Amino acid sequence: MSIQNVTEKVERWGVFELTLKGPEGGNPFLEVNFDAEFRYRGRAVMMGGFYDGDGIYKVRFMPDTEGYWTYTTKSGCVELNGITGSFLCTAPGANNHGPVRVKNTFHFEYEDKTPYYPFGTTCYAWIHQGYELEEQTLNTLKNSPFNKLRMCVFPKDYSYNKNEPVYYPFEGSLEKGWDYTRFNPEFFRHLEKRIMDLGELGIEADLILFHCYDRWGYSNMDEDSNIRYLTYLVRRLSAYRNIWWSLANEFDFVQSKTMGDWDRLFKIVQQNDPFQHLRSIHNGRTFYDHGKPWVTHCSIQSSQLDKVYEWRNLYNKPIIVDECCYEGNIEHDWGNITDKEMVHRFWKGFCCGGYVGHGETYIHPQDILWWSKGGVLYGKSPERIAFLRKIIEEGPSDGLTPYHDTWQVVWAGKEGYYYLMYFGINQPYFKEINLPESDKFEVEIIDTWEMTITPLPGEYSGKCRIELPAKQYIALRIRRLHSFSSIKGGF
Amino acid sequence: MSIQNVTEKVERWGVFELTLKGPEGGNPFLEVNFDAEFRYRGRAVMMGGFYDGDGIYKVRFMPDTEGYWTYTTKSGCVELNGITGSFLCTAPGANNHGPVRVKNTFHFEYEDKTPYYPFGTTCYAWIHQGYELEEQTLNTLKNSPFNKLRMCVFPKDYSYNKNEPVYYPFEGSLEKGWDYTRFNPEFFRHLEKRIMDLGELGIEADLILFHCYDRWGYSNMDEDSNIRYLTYLVRRLSAYRNIWWSLANEFDFVQSKTMGDWDRLFKIVQQNDPFQHLRSIHNGRTFYDHGKPWVTHCSIQSSQLDKVYEWRNLYNKPIIVDECCYEGNIEHDWGNITDKEMVHRFWKGFCCGGYVGHGETYIHPQDILWWSKGGVLYGKSPERIAFLRKIIEEGPSDGLTPYHDTWQVVWAGKEGYYYLMYFGINQPYFKEINLPESDKFEVEIIDTWEMTITPLPGEYSGKCRIELPAKQYIALRIRRLHSFSSIKGGF
Repeated sequence: MSIQNVTEKVERWGVFELTLKGPEGGNPFLEVNFDAEFRYRGRAVMMGGFYDGDGIYKVRFMPDTEGYWTYTTKSGCVELNGITGSFLCTAPGANNHGPVRVKNTFHFEYEDKTPYYPFGTTCYAWIHQGYELEEQTLNTLKNSPFNKLRMCVFPKDYSYNKNEPVYYPFEGSLEKGWDYTRFNPEFFRHLEKRIMDLGELGIEADLILFHCYDRWGYSNMDEDSNIRYLTYLVRRLSAYRNIWWSLANEFDFVQSKTMGDWDRLFKIVQQNDPFQHLRSIHNGRTFYDHGKPWVTHCSIQSSQLDKVYEWRNLYNKPIIVDECCYEGNIEHDWGNITDKEMVHRFWKGFCCGGYVGHGETYIHPQDILWWSKGGVLYGKSPERIAFLRKIIEEGPSDGLTPYHDTWQVVWAGKEGYYYLMYFGINQPYFKEINLPESDKFEVEIIDTWEMTITPLPGEYSGKCRIELPAKQYIALRIRRLHSFSSIKGGF
Repeated sequence: MSIQNVTEKVERWGVFELTLKGPEGGNPFLEVNFDAEFRYRGRAVMMGGFYDGDGIYKVRFMPDTEGYWTYTTKSGCVELNGITGSFLCTAPGANNHGPVRVKNTFHFEYEDKTPYYPFGTTCYAWIHQGYELEEQTLNTLKNSPFNKLRMCVFPKDYSYNKNEPVYYPFEGSLEKGWDYTRFNPEFFRHLEKRIMDLGELGIEADLILFHCYDRWGYSNMDEDSNIRYLTYLVRRLSAYRNIWWSLANEFDFVQSKTMGDWDRLFKIVQQNDPFQHLRSIHNGRTFYDHGKPWVTHCSIQSSQLDKVYEWRNLYNKPIIVDECCYEGNIEHDWGNITDKEMVHRFWKGFCCGGYVGHGETYIHPQDILWWSKGGVLYGKSPERIAFLRKIIEEGPSDGLTPYHDTWQVVWAGKEGYYYLMYFGINQPYFKEINLPESDKFEVEIIDTWEMTITPLPGEYSGKCRIELPAKQYIALRIRRLHSFSSIKGGF
């Protein structure tokens, strides 16, 4: 039994990592168990360790409380058993707000209570494109409005996606087959690097654990291999605060797995992640039952944004329509909506009390389409999505509650304080609105495409007629006067 | 018993009218029954007569078979009983194709087998606007693509509709109340005149028998008055071949009537119309069960045109989405879609195997909105609807059968011969299509908004890649070569 360095410091929600030397012989991935118990005062948290190759064993931990933590390793292997130590958890850095949690049933916040409004995009296979393109993707993301990225662990085989990845997750080759009992640590170190890169940009990694766009066989592994893979992955990645677990993309298109399989795989993730990062599963044609307790929020593919109302009522969880079709012009109808339509779907989804995700699929001479490989964004929607994000961030911190309307207008707000009303593809010349008579409100006309906000003169109360520009993609922002400014951003 | 003129001639599906003098005293509307039996060889058809005021009684008849017809009147009143006569039914005039019937389950044709594709518009209260505006409406219709008009019997009270009508259907006044037992023949003669005017333009009158936009009380008449009204109306109008019966507009918003009431009223119409004109009922929020046997086709208000698939399967009848919102800019969201969106909905509905109706609601300084009062059309959709109508009329005479697609593309056709494929709001750069390998096809790219048809060079067969202009509102017309031209318009 040896004592590790007791003066190590880790910021709150940072990554503590313990590295030990252990056996190299046989198959350490299979044959060596290695965990650690972390303690803060009376609380004990078990965290699984993993083998990182070359006789190196690691365990990672994300402390959620400031102060002294101690740990003790447990292993059937004597070299790895009973190692103890401690570290000091310090205050988080300036841009560290902790992991994202569900808030107020339908919304999100960081663990430090800072509001988090997901504005996601999609680059499924970006980590499999090599250094240059991956760095370009990060640079594009840095200058984008996006704070969540849907991305796959495994490489992707699909139209516009035929290149081999740089790293493979298992030992072996496409020709000779894979040894699913032996992971390739280099693959996982690269994945971790990219997740950390995203973390530095303030971007949540919505990590897709299985998908069906596959020529390597990873979508058809046997049950034991699936469990080993998930266990290994979750142990390696759980300590990164910006991880979200997406069990699958288009789960119902993965023909090798039954609904019962997905339930079990969810539980494997849940059991191995003591930090309980967000968990979801994304549909093709059929929905998984998002009401099941291990699902933290709905991850939905649909172009029917007004169904957000229905899903909120059905599942009573946050709704992220992370695939509402992509801005682009490819032959697939999920990948050829216009810039205006993409922005329209964002506004519609948000004004129904949900969240919407972006993706881009413009034909490219080298088949570098953002939706899968990353690179550069060509579309006009991201700038408008940034505009919406600013508006949402200036809105109620506890999220927008929708008001269901009979016709096409969608609107949401915080009763008595704030209303965001979106007229979508309609072009009304005017609207009559009913505001509470007990207060006075300011009204602004927002052109969601031109990105202008025009305050209307005067104060509004009760039944009001609002003249409108009789064009598409117009919204109204209505905020209570006086009371509003004093509690702006925090009411 | 007297013999009427035996040399009278009436064209097939024209109106034979017998006029007799009878009692004027008391209330002839209530107290005198008067019918006639019309005979062609062994066939006898009973037709109800009606009182037209000033001691005049009439019975009208639409003969459907060429040759000699005889008739005998029947009445409890001796002056009107046992009058016999005959007329010669001659060949129909050039533009007379008879009444419209359901064809091939989901489509329509005139009784002479000429295809009829409904391209309707809406002027609810046009007959209540006075001579000048009514004539202007007719002139507009004459130069429009529309061959069906939704219109109300009763005057309308609603936003933009506050003017009093020229004629009232009953004796009485708004102030003193109405005598529902005494009809105003002038009102009905005017209505008939307008229906005949439409007939001369080749326009079907989709006549709305009840509606709720009412300050006169006509939507709240008692059961006996409703039955008397329908009986009187149907006896007066059935002989006009261009009549369709629409039991109500937004039937579920007429609070005074139950579902059982509507069933009974349908049967009153059915029993009094020996020519069995088309019958439907138009919904607000709730559908009437269009599966009931007296409903000949579905009259639907909805902006979800892709549901045409579902309704076809559900009701197994023709689907007319006669209210898919209106082109315009008023405050109501059913009345402020753009010109492009209106044309889009037409294409979408037709390519789902249904039919779509038009309406227009642009703000007007004198509140003359086409949708209700008629007048002049300002929008850009009618020209494009004319373009679509031409394409549909060049297509299969037995109508388009839809192919349900997973994504947004809608397409319909006649298997092996003809396909109309519409990409809607999507903007694909190309499409892969699968044509039968046994034949060769010609392919044309249609820009539904620009109204251009661009034939692609070459012949197409089997799996083909079609380059597209990567913009919205594009369609493909695909026709079998060789075989097609020889049976054009009739295959």
